[in-house]
Amino acid sequence: MLPAVNLRPAFNITRTSHVILTVADLRKSREFYTDVVGLVVSDEDENSCYLRGLAEACHHSLVLVQSQDGGKCRRIGFRVFFDEDLDIAYQYFRGRGLPAEWAEAPYQGRTLHVSDPIGTRIELCATMETRQRMYLHKEKHKGAYAQRLDHFQIHAPDTYALCAFYSELGFRNSEYLTHEDKLLGAFMYRKGTCLDLAIVPGLAPRLHHLAYTVPEAHDIFTGCDLAGIYGYPSSVERGPGRHGPGGMLFVYLIDPDGHRVELFNSHYQTIDIEIEPVRWDAATLSTNVRWGLPALARWYSVATEFEGVPLTEPVEKPNPETLESYIRKREEAAQG
Amino acid sequence: MLPAVNLRPAFNITRTSHVILTVADLRKSREFYTDVVGLVVSDEDENSCYLRGLAEACHHSLVLVQSQDGGKCRRIGFRVFFDEDLDIAYQYFRGRGLPAEWAEAPYQGRTLHVSDPIGTRIELCATMETRQRMYLHKEKHKGAYAQRLDHFQIHAPDTYALCAFYSELGFRNSEYLTHEDKLLGAFMYRKGTCLDLAIVPGLAPRLHHLAYTVPEAHDIFTGCDLAGIYGYPSSVERGPGRHGPGGMLFVYLIDPDGHRVELFNSHYQTIDIEIEPVRWDAATLSTNVRWGLPALARWYSVATEFEGVPLTEPVEKPNPETLESYIRKREEAAQG
Amino acid sequence: MLPAVNLRPAFNITRTSHVILTVADLRKSREFYTDVVGLVVSDEDENSCYLRGLAEACHHSLVLVQSQDGGKCRRIGFRVFFDEDLDIAYQYFRGRGLPAEWAEAPYQGRTLHVSDPIGTRIELCATMETRQRMYLHKEKHKGAYAQRLDHFQIHAPDTYALCAFYSELGFRNSEYLTHEDKLLGAFMYRKGTCLDLAIVPGLAPRLHHLAYTVPEAHDIFTGCDLAGIYGYPSSVERGPGRHGPGGMLFVYLIDPDGHRVELFNSHYQTIDIEIEPVRWDAATLSTNVRWGLPALARWYSVATEFEGVPLTEPVEKPNPETLESYIRKREEAAQG
Amino acid sequence: MLPAVNLRPAFNITRTSHVILTVADLRKSREFYTDVVGLVVSDEDENSCYLRGLAEACHHSLVLVQSQDGGKCRRIGFRVFFDEDLDIAYQYFRGRGLPAEWAEAPYQGRTLHVSDPIGTRIELCATMETRQRMYLHKEKHKGAYAQRLDHFQIHAPDTYALCAFYSELGFRNSEYLTHEDKLLGAFMYRKGTCLDLAIVPGLAPRLHHLAYTVPEAHDIFTGCDLAGIYGYPSSVERGPGRHGPGGMLFVYLIDPDGHRVELFNSHYQTIDIEIEPVRWDAATLSTNVRWGLPALARWYSVATEFEGVPLTEPVEKPNPETLESYIRKREEAAQG
Repeated sequence: MLPAVNLRPAFNITRTSHVILTVADLRKSREFYTDVVGLVVSDEDENSCYLRGLAEACHHSLVLVQSQDGGKCRRIGFRVFFDEDLDIAYQYFRGRGLPAEWAEAPYQGRTLHVSDPIGTRIELCATMETRQRMYLHKEKHKGAYAQRLDHFQIHAPDTYALCAFYSELGFRNSEYLTHEDKLLGAFMYRKGTCLDLAIVPGLAPRLHHLAYTVPEAHDIFTGCDLAGIYGYPSSVERGPGRHGPGGMLFVYLIDPDGHRVELFNSHYQTIDIEIEPVRWDAATLSTNVRWGLPALARWYSVATEFEGVPLTEPVEKPNPETLESYIRKREEAAQG
Repeated sequence: MLPAVNLRPAFNITRTSHVILTVADLRKSREFYTDVVGLVVSDEDENSCYLRGLAEACHHSLVLVQSQDGGKCRRIGFRVFFDEDLDIAYQYFRGRGLPAEWAEAPYQGRTLHVSDPIGTRIELCATMETRQRMYLHKEKHKGAYAQRLDHFQIHAPDTYALCAFYSELGFRNSEYLTHEDKLLGAFMYRKGTCLDLAIVPGLAPRLHHLAYTVPEAHDIFTGCDLAGIYGYPSSVERGPGRHGPGGMLFVYLIDPDGHRVELFNSHYQTIDIEIEPVRWDAATLSTNVRWGLPALARWYSVATEFEGVPLTEPVEKPNPETLESYIRKREEAAQG
Repeated sequence: MLPAVNLRPAFNITRTSHVILTVADLRKSREFYTDVVGLVVSDEDENSCYLRGLAEACHHSLVLVQSQDGGKCRRIGFRVFFDEDLDIAYQYFRGRGLPAEWAEAPYQGRTLHVSDPIGTRIELCATMETRQRMYLHKEKHKGAYAQRLDHFQIHAPDTYALCAFYSELGFRNSEYLTHEDKLLGAFMYRKGTCLDLAIVPGLAPRLHHLAYTVPEAHDIFTGCDLAGIYGYPSSVERGPGRHGPGGMLFVYLIDPDGHRVELFNSHYQTIDIEIEPVRWDAATLSTNVRWGLPALARWYSVATEFEGVPLTEPVEKPNPETLESYIRKREEAAQG
Repeated sequence: MLPAVNLRPAFNITRTSHVILTVADLRKSREFYTDVVGLVVSDEDENSCYLRGLAEACHHSLVLVQSQDGGKCRRIGFRVFFDEDLDIAYQYFRGRGLPAEWAEAPYQGRTLHVSDPIGTRIELCATMETRQRMYLHKEKHKGAYAQRLDHFQIHAPDTYALCAFYSELGFRNSEYLTHEDKLLGAFMYRKGTCLDLAIVPGLAPRLHHLAYTVPEAHDIFTGCDLAGIYGYPSSVERGPGRHGPGGMLFVYLIDPDGHRVELFNSHYQTIDIEIEPVRWDAATLSTNVRWGLPALARWYSVATEFEGVPLTEPVEKPNPETLESYIRKREEAAQG
């Protein structure tokens, strides 16, 4: 059901690192991410703003870039452990006929641009400048107190095939969703929690959401309250609720450009190799939500495209086998 | 806009006290209220179960009665301060041509049955047997830790007229909702918080919901989680969300018979006579929800009828002026 | 054991209202109460600052007055329901040979200055100017989010005698502490919670502490954290811990002038007349703390004197029968 | 100041795994860890009880063993990634003249017993049997909801020397405490958080405490409340408070045999190699506590000895340079 994992990958990706999003109004987006989400600004200039969570020491986990073509994702970033992992990665991608180019990125060490087989644009680096962690500076805290970037959810035309690619890179699986031998979704991780990259079927490549951790359940309400106060009452697109897979409390907010950000409280530790992935069957009622109101329809259909990357239809056209329709039907059934 | 309040009412109603609900399956309902809501059983027999919240010393705030005609409300109860207030109340209701009968009710002192002008069945008493407050016995806590019954929301054919009746009984107003000089909803209180009785337009008399306080924001999630665990994932009918009027975090659950119970965290203190009620205009976006997903449709249309009491259509038939349609339109607008 | 309560007092005191404290450095004290405690400023001038909690509509619950004689209490304030209650109160105190003088107090309606039999200086009024409740304006929240002034704890030379005085004024008892038929402490209330005025033995009259409610358990930690951040790490004098009587989570902070302020989460509802006060025996281990580290010694001995009022020794000189030594012994025993 | 870290250690220790403690009364200790701490029992027999936290999939993180010689630690356990890491570890320890013996341990895969240079008894394994994670089974939750074993704090006669040993094994440093070029304490980690092993000076080898994570701040209070309810009011030995290094909310409880268990909320993510350890100077006020009451004296002097292992005096006899006396002086100074 799940592709085999390579526990000794060629190079060592350690964790989800950062994401670069284009925005139509830099000032407005900066306010959303500082006042509602609770990030702090590490550096900024006229055209870009570098933000990090309250518990992050590395320079940025979110880069906002002013662009007439707002609402796109430029790249999602992962960290590698050593600088030499970058060189191995370069050879690895080139060797498979995939894009790999050295790049310059402010505040980062050597940086490598690659793409996965479906065109998802990725940035790898081993180091960043560091800043003070702000988690104890409560006198400066705002928003929902987002602590650190945790994971991305991306779309794939063929979930199994893309999972196989990342499994070869050493991504392991914590939980997955199936129906009739079809893989409808997979939680994949490199760091010792249950997620760095969630892969679900759909028009691809697209970034469905980025996710920041918040410390406690009540912070999820605080995020919603501040979204309302700062003029984004309709930004709450799904939740607050409790996930089935992973079991986290969550809420999804839509930023001013339509980028989706999940705030959730933290999940369990993985690490050990003997632990089997948790399997969820889409045919059972409580698949994706144990309780909770249905998400707005756009949660299932809208996602952030990658700048300049053409879209591919899913292998199986929108039909009852896709994750979205399964979940949706379940939610509607749950609500009677 | 609001009826004048009688600050020196003929008799002293002090607070929302209890409610008697009929249920089709006593065992199942008992489990819902103990395992999900978190009430404790004070006494029970084959046909009835008396429950109280963790912080309540009085014998019961919820009485479940087995009945083939499950899903009805028998009476909502208020407390008066002195026993002699009951005698005055008897004269008061009789004097206005309203039903008033002495009754026997287990575990209660002298008990008076009355009805308001629209037929809402009410029970008044001055004393109950007492039991130990359980709020510190954490080793026995279950469910969402419901602390105490706080208020009822009922329907009225004419909101203003029923508010006028309760204002004469000394109920004061904390917050209200209007549109174009029409009163669409009113929060009325006797005890020193902002609610004992919410009155909204609709087919009447019906009990829209009873509401228990929970201690903290995270307990609202616990209630939802346990609803899911104990087989009621679809009982979450609205929320979790944040109210506009009153400002409380809330969730509405549907019990096995369709009775609606709100869990919310506590609200502010009232008491002082110089404080003006807060006015909300249904025409402004954030009227009833500052953020949050729309409630399921049934939240707006379904409510608990009073056993054996005929229904009256609202003065204004379902039209854009009713509270429900206003709120609904707002929510839909908010969600785009 | 407890004095009889007058359930139909001559005039209607409704609740703890406000307190006027002298401070040596107004700017510094203002910062402590806004940045650490979380109050908001309603008005201020060169010599005084009027503050209220986030859930308070009335103009002030704390008045700080610059004074060379900082660290004193000028008056504790209670509210009466009607203006005419003030006239009755005037006659009541005068009739008993107790001080009663009409006074002017900014932002308040008619104001009456009285003293209880041991010289505790009290201010009564029926109305204040009102301001917007700030509890939902999360974007402006600071400190521990103190919601509203809840109660005072004062010292009495003879606890029973002073309880008798306040019982005659309609104060009822929720919980009390005894040993061998001696009343060592009493929780007295007028509003529908378990406290407006706690009375304990000691050098008198002195204000042991004023107490603000905070919404949730974690806010108590936030108050402590901000005390540390803003330069008052040693202001945490007792707790965080859990009270026996009343059962609240608490922490006591010392302000820059040595005034003691308790932050605690809210307590249970009282109101009904059939509920018996809870009795605690100082001889049983868990009397005052169910768990927790001993308070610093000064918590037991230091309190705020009333400006210009001479002190009276307790009837029973410091001996094993006093509350403080009982509690202290218990705590030491508890800690081995 | 800190020993150099070997980023490519000979074998891969991944995380703190488990601990084996001897207890005088197995039933009593089992109750403490289930009812107060909140662990669940994976397996048990007449003489031993295997427990895990609510978020743990591996069979046990705490093993209680009935013994007349209760109150001792048999071994602390770490996990390695692959089975072959055990073979390398065996050679590594043998090659340095340190104890290394293969052992049988129920519910674990191949198990290796080793000792560090000061005699700390350690157990290594690569796999365990697994059980269902219980973190979402709220209907079965008890105690403080301890989620997973996080770290140990041990004593060393010479902190620097022992840190050097563990640094060679790949343990990295997140935060450390110094005074005048002396290393007074070090937080060392293998997994991606800031702690697996804290090393402080003192009579050695001894286990100062084991630490479980709890989900939220309020759970710390719940742990204390249940300690009081179940008859351990004096088990609260230090806190609740906020750590300086690591910044966690914490409380230390003493179990029935005197073993010390810390409950704390979770800390920040480490992983990246460019992040510098945080340095704390014992000479500055807020070294170890930003606020909070002093710990009971025994927190500084009492710790769990390893079964059958002789004790070594610290290199520097108890003097002002030891961690404990530094912290203690700071705390006393902080409290005036």
